Amino acid sequence: MENFNFYNPVSIHFGKDVLNELADTIKLYGNNILLVYGKGSVVKNGYYNLVVNILNKNGIKYTEISGIKPNPVDSDVDEAVKIGRQEKVQAVLALGGGSVIDSSKAMALCIPENLSAWEVLKGRQKPEKALPLITILTLAATGTEMNHFSVLQNHQTNEKLGFRNPLMYPKHSFLDPQFTITVPKNYTAYGIADIIAHAFEGFFGGGNSPLADKFAASIITECIKFAPLVLNEPDNYEYRANILLQSTYALNGTTTIGKISGDWGTHAIGHTLSLLYDIPHGASLSIAYPAWFKLMKHQIPDEIKRLAQLIFGLNDIDLFIENLEQFYISIETPVRLEDAGIKRNKKNEIVELMKKNQISGFFHKFSNYEKLTELMYR
Amino acid sequence: MENFNFYNPVSIHFGKDVLNELADTIKLYGNNILLVYGKGSVVKNGYYNLVVNILNKNGIKYTEISGIKPNPVDSDVDEAVKIGRQEKVQAVLALGGGSVIDSSKAMALCIPENLSAWEVLKGRQKPEKALPLITILTLAATGTEMNHFSVLQNHQTNEKLGFRNPLMYPKHSFLDPQFTITVPKNYTAYGIADIIAHAFEGFFGGGNSPLADKFAASIITECIKFAPLVLNEPDNYEYRANILLQSTYALNGTTTIGKISGDWGTHAIGHTLSLLYDIPHGASLSIAYPAWFKLMKHQIPDEIKRLAQLIFGLNDIDLFIENLEQFYISIETPVRLEDAGIKRNKKNEIVELMKKNQISGFFHKFSNYEKLTELMYR
Repeated sequence: MENFNFYNPVSIHFGKDVLNELADTIKLYGNNILLVYGKGSVVKNGYYNLVVNILNKNGIKYTEISGIKPNPVDSDVDEAVKIGRQEKVQAVLALGGGSVIDSSKAMALCIPENLSAWEVLKGRQKPEKALPLITILTLAATGTEMNHFSVLQNHQTNEKLGFRNPLMYPKHSFLDPQFTITVPKNYTAYGIADIIAHAFEGFFGGGNSPLADKFAASIITECIKFAPLVLNEPDNYEYRANILLQSTYALNGTTTIGKISGDWGTHAIGHTLSLLYDIPHGASLSIAYPAWFKLMKHQIPDEIKRLAQLIFGLNDIDLFIENLEQFYISIETPVRLEDAGIKRNKKNEIVELMKKNQISGFFHKFSNYEKLTELMYR
Repeated sequence: MENFNFYNPVSIHFGKDVLNELADTIKLYGNNILLVYGKGSVVKNGYYNLVVNILNKNGIKYTEISGIKPNPVDSDVDEAVKIGRQEKVQAVLALGGGSVIDSSKAMALCIPENLSAWEVLKGRQKPEKALPLITILTLAATGTEMNHFSVLQNHQTNEKLGFRNPLMYPKHSFLDPQFTITVPKNYTAYGIADIIAHAFEGFFGGGNSPLADKFAASIITECIKFAPLVLNEPDNYEYRANILLQSTYALNGTTTIGKISGDWGTHAIGHTLSLLYDIPHGASLSIAYPAWFKLMKHQIPDEIKRLAQLIFGLNDIDLFIENLEQFYISIETPVRLEDAGIKRNKKNEIVELMKKNQISGFFHKFSNYEKLTELMYR
């Protein structure tokens, strides 16, 4: 087992109508905030009104940053940092899914010292403080609500990268499963693919921690169990609550205790696809993982077999991959590039960008981009 | 799934030689501390010297509180509170196992406002602040290093009770598996019984959270797997590290996410035995749990079967209890009162104290103390 530090101070408010505790929570930090949200589904579904009513009723001043993109961009963060500084906001309130929260983390980190998001991400600027961040989650997927990671992309450099900073832990995250009931079927499925991918990354991380591996496998098996249930009955509170809890635990450190960190190789493949074709993050992962397993099966057969045993009770890697693909197909997430509308003639473009950005895993390295991409087309 | 709040801000420093980070960590909070330890095994094993050398070398002043008893007593805490106030300590450093850390939690909570430990435990005094607490763990068992619980006993009232307060979360806990290598075989086994009992309490807690149940079962199966390994090879770092990680995760909230709380009925039985006969906590639990399962098997058969399936792949409750008892016997923890030297003629005394203290579970209540006690004798 590796030496490790674990610290996760996020206060989780989970369950029905937990926004009852929102105003008092914000007031712990001030009464002038930045309210960040996305493209309008939170408006359409009434969550925006609900939150704004709470703010108005409690005399909390808010400045709005709206229109955060599904694959969030560093320049939008920089724009919001300017506004946040002008308005002298005391805290950031994120209302949305992973992209809104990831952007808000970067804003909270950059506002106090007027930093540039991409410079911080690249480690060239080092923040010493951050504004308090409070999140209200509307999508079970990224786990960002309970960790200190953020992923941003930069269209100038054509990179999509994750970074971490303990100052980016939200102070509080409000997780009401009712807010996830309006998530459409396809995005529910992409979220599920993301949850499972996070647990995979933990499982294939650096170091030997059988308990962490059992935790990862528990999340995967429960997620596979609840996936068809929630897709068949999207307004079932209990199913939504279970998926939401799985998503939070898939990336809050539980699956990497006793390890150095997760592997993140397959996420890097997915990021390449999102950068080029703006496809949803979860959809990129259900394409990338089967190909990655096929690429790695001779390199790390024992690890893959151990996972296959824990999840499906299988000892055969090919059968494991087949089962996994069948699962993705059953929830209608793509398993091949062409399923996501990415035609054969894009192959070189993908290979070239992987090469340029030198994508790889942390612990199970790969560089055969040609073969990997071919496997994503089959 | 139940609504829940989760908040666990303990910073864990886990692994070989993590005390390298101790001095810098203490200095975050001050340079005048209360150093709390137990009966002398930490002196005999050299851990005391190691810590004191670090303190001396770094100019950190310390006042010693030694002689904390294995089943810690409120009056010892009150005595230490006086001394801590006199010396104007800025933090508490606990070096030891569960009893030392539980006592230190109460000290840290009572020193700033000069409170009485038992009054706080009973909820009649409500602390508003606490001193920072740093722990160095020497025994894998109670999980106190990463939670806000403490258990104290009171010889005046003949009660042994747990209480919780978010102010009692340690700021930092140092977990070096090397420090647990000197734990004798019997106490290693009692610790294992305690770890498993915590996971049981989570499993039988209030509310329905299949993911939490899988986490609990993961801890139990891993603990059952590593128990014979560590007992056969007590100086194996890897085995000790795994047991230590299991003990921390068995009671840091992971097994009760999505639930109201753990059940704690069987711990209350164990506390009765420790109060009367001062037997080690873990030993009291390997006696109490089989009896509790036998008492409850007609009341909650489905829950017990679900646990039996997850741990041993069994559907038969009696066979499950037999397997569990065989496991306890294999690690030489007692499964009957007479194994722990508690003779038949004590039966009434036990029944009477359970009756007087109205012990019971939170969610699976019991009051047939006569039958329960009989089952502990077989």
